[in-house]
Amino acid sequence: MTEVEAKKPQESLQDRLNQVVELLNKHKLVEDLAHRQEGQHQGLVENLVHRQNLAELQRKLDDLHPADIAHILESLPLDDRLTVWQLVKAERDGDILLEVSDAVRETLIADMDDHEILAAAKEMDADELADLAPELPRDVVHELMETLDAQQRERVRSALSYEEDQVGALMDFEMVTIRDDVSLEVVLRYLRRLKELPGHTDKLFVVDYDGVLKGVLPIKRLLVNDPDKDVAEVMATDPVTFQPDEDGYDAAQAFERYDLISAPVVDKNGKLIGRLTIDEMVDLIREESESEVLSMAGLREEEDIFASVWKSVRNRWTWLATNLITAFIASRVIGLFEGSIEKLVALAALMPIVAGIGGNSGNQTITMIVRAIALDQVQASNASRLLRKEVGVSLVNGLVWGGVIGIVAYYLYGNWELGLVMTAAMTLNLLLAAMAGVIIPMTLLRMGRDPAMGSSVLITAMTDSGGFFIFLGLATLFLM
Amino acid sequence: MTEVEAKKPQESLQDRLNQVVELLNKHKLVEDLAHRQEGQHQGLVENLVHRQNLAELQRKLDDLHPADIAHILESLPLDDRLTVWQLVKAERDGDILLEVSDAVRETLIADMDDHEILAAAKEMDADELADLAPELPRDVVHELMETLDAQQRERVRSALSYEEDQVGALMDFEMVTIRDDVSLEVVLRYLRRLKELPGHTDKLFVVDYDGVLKGVLPIKRLLVNDPDKDVAEVMATDPVTFQPDEDGYDAAQAFERYDLISAPVVDKNGKLIGRLTIDEMVDLIREESESEVLSMAGLREEEDIFASVWKSVRNRWTWLATNLITAFIASRVIGLFEGSIEKLVALAALMPIVAGIGGNSGNQTITMIVRAIALDQVQASNASRLLRKEVGVSLVNGLVWGGVIGIVAYYLYGNWELGLVMTAAMTLNLLLAAMAGVIIPMTLLRMGRDPAMGSSVLITAMTDSGGFFIFLGLATLFLM
Repeated sequence: MTEVEAKKPQESLQDRLNQVVELLNKHKLVEDLAHRQEGQHQGLVENLVHRQNLAELQRKLDDLHPADIAHILESLPLDDRLTVWQLVKAERDGDILLEVSDAVRETLIADMDDHEILAAAKEMDADELADLAPELPRDVVHELMETLDAQQRERVRSALSYEEDQVGALMDFEMVTIRDDVSLEVVLRYLRRLKELPGHTDKLFVVDYDGVLKGVLPIKRLLVNDPDKDVAEVMATDPVTFQPDEDGYDAAQAFERYDLISAPVVDKNGKLIGRLTIDEMVDLIREESESEVLSMAGLREEEDIFASVWKSVRNRWTWLATNLITAFIASRVIGLFEGSIEKLVALAALMPIVAGIGGNSGNQTITMIVRAIALDQVQASNASRLLRKEVGVSLVNGLVWGGVIGIVAYYLYGNWELGLVMTAAMTLNLLLAAMAGVIIPMTLLRMGRDPAMGSSVLITAMTDSGGFFIFLGLATLFLM
Repeated sequence: MTEVEAKKPQESLQDRLNQVVELLNKHKLVEDLAHRQEGQHQGLVENLVHRQNLAELQRKLDDLHPADIAHILESLPLDDRLTVWQLVKAERDGDILLEVSDAVRETLIADMDDHEILAAAKEMDADELADLAPELPRDVVHELMETLDAQQRERVRSALSYEEDQVGALMDFEMVTIRDDVSLEVVLRYLRRLKELPGHTDKLFVVDYDGVLKGVLPIKRLLVNDPDKDVAEVMATDPVTFQPDEDGYDAAQAFERYDLISAPVVDKNGKLIGRLTIDEMVDLIREESESEVLSMAGLREEEDIFASVWKSVRNRWTWLATNLITAFIASRVIGLFEGSIEKLVALAALMPIVAGIGGNSGNQTITMIVRAIALDQVQASNASRLLRKEVGVSLVNGLVWGGVIGIVAYYLYGNWELGLVMTAAMTLNLLLAAMAGVIIPMTLLRMGRDPAMGSSVLITAMTDSGGFFIFLGLATLFLM
């Protein structure tokens, strides 16, 4: 894709978004007027104002970086979004489509005809095409593949053969390769002939005649070393490399850890097949932490905040349904003790405290553990130690806060035994919360599932049912 | 700091961690034995084995990149962590301290004497020193400052004068500056004389005689253009720049948006004073999303997972105490309706369902909104639209799931009026959850507070008290 030099924004992004919204509102106001006076032969004037507004909006958009337009599109409700989208110059469509989130991209593509999609896609590189392909109509993809040369087509196919978070799907093909038996002077002359270097070129890839990677030549070394030296003398022979079937998130962590900007991807025989760059990795890091937040709250995927009600319902229903079942179980636990509640109605008022504090404390624990798992800090060998620590924390909290609430219960209901039961139940439920907070994510991990997945719903289910059972059970044993 | 070339890890990070843990366990086993047989004059043999194990561990550690050692230190409980820390070669201490999290750094520094700290700090750059300084003993910082030259000291002072997430605290000072009236050939010769370029040098900074930034020369352009051309012909005159008092997180978003690797920082007069690099920005992006997850769950800050029980209690108590108060309020709401519960004990069993589903649904909404705010997609102008959408979603969910649970309640208790009250209460509480889910974070934002802050605790408080009030209130009105 053509590279756009980012210019210093004169205004903040927020300002620019507000300006676009303002222009859109003007535009709608005029459209409203025009609509109301239709048939009154006054349309002409309004139409003119209307067009001026749109022209001003278009000028504004033409000045913006594609990433900024993408951000504006994401922040606009669907109708405004499409108005802006239609004003964007056709040759920038591709750049912008690559910048927006999947959910928003879908709404934009739905608004384009096949011809427009083809035009936007034609300027893309193989890896960009592969990113986009799964969301395009099947016949458009087919037509697109026809227009590519054999190498490009092969690259798109290869990228499509990997899962979207595998290295093979994340790599691009813009490598500058050199041989190791030439001098740096030759390399410098070769680069000059290229006229342009791919973005994020911080190193050149040194390959032999079979395309096998022999090392990398960091640009820094190229610049500071004597031009008469050979590449072989100066190159790094043991660079960090990746394989196409590696997990992209692991690669991102390596980029972060070793401060990489680009890195070669090689196949099993050591042949150079692509490269990873920091910009893709940053996107991945951001996405990963987003999906963690979302899945803890029981959302299936990133949601276009302006998605239709219907789409949102679908995105959220799985965990709501799960929650319905767990809430029903908690309700049946209470049902077991209806006799006790009838005798001592204070139990009904106090039981949500036990369950609620347990849920909150359990959520703190599980959030900690899910984070530590995501950062690879937790393994089987230290699980029991973590468990001991969390149990210690909950014991302290249970005795302190359980004690406080026990005293409050005594004052409210004048029943010191009730206060004692309250304190004991709080302590036990916090212990349960601590154990569940460690064991649930560790078990999900061992089962090969995402430990963040609905963890908040699961832990709350445990502490609700458990809390009701412990509190009402103790009350029935000691107070009835 | 000395730059370390990252080498291709032969084993995965996890493998390496496991190897270290294994060696540590061997070591402890022998120590245990030695301890038990003390005074039996057999200590000599054990001591030898013991030393061999440690030597093997040390060799292992010497092979690892500082970032990998940092990761291993983070993943070890305190006693093992300090054993490993003592084995690390003194000259690598500084690099490793800069890589670990704040919480873990504190435990490592606590284990070092002033002399060791000084030695580790002596190899650091001004910006790195400033990062570390707040956590060092006061007299060590003082002694350290004495050893610096005037420029370095000024830089440390300047970096320390900014908040830790402001650009001024994040920038480094390793800029390569050039003039615009020389040819590219001169620039190339100048770079060769430098022998080494700072990490992440993707552009050179073009300044005038007063140090005012006139543009940047991307290395890419330096390489592909004719060496006879002047810098002024080739440089980009309108680069993205930052000011030291800007928010670092905004800068990180700009890096992400415009795919930057480095960018100049200028003061109010346009004078070049430092530069930002992508590695610092990636750390910031990661930290930002982490602190969002943590603060939603009501944790004050990132916790060393092996922190003492006492430290963890302190980190978590604020929100637990808040939760205690909100749970108490919910309990008092139920207390208002004790008469109704006494008459119809089924209410006690059903009320947590209404509250629980409301809490879950509210958490989904608030997570969405907090995310959208973090991504700058939400502003006052579209708040009402979001509210309408969320209300729509909750209306659908309320009628569907409320209907289901109403029918279940009817079957359980044979009381169709109770079923209807259940459905109505569910729908109303989901509406409340939707509104609170939008309004709470928007209000926090307007008050200039962090919208993620304890949002989960706050929304649960609303849906608990609200759910109990709605359900028991409706029941009292229609069933008594």
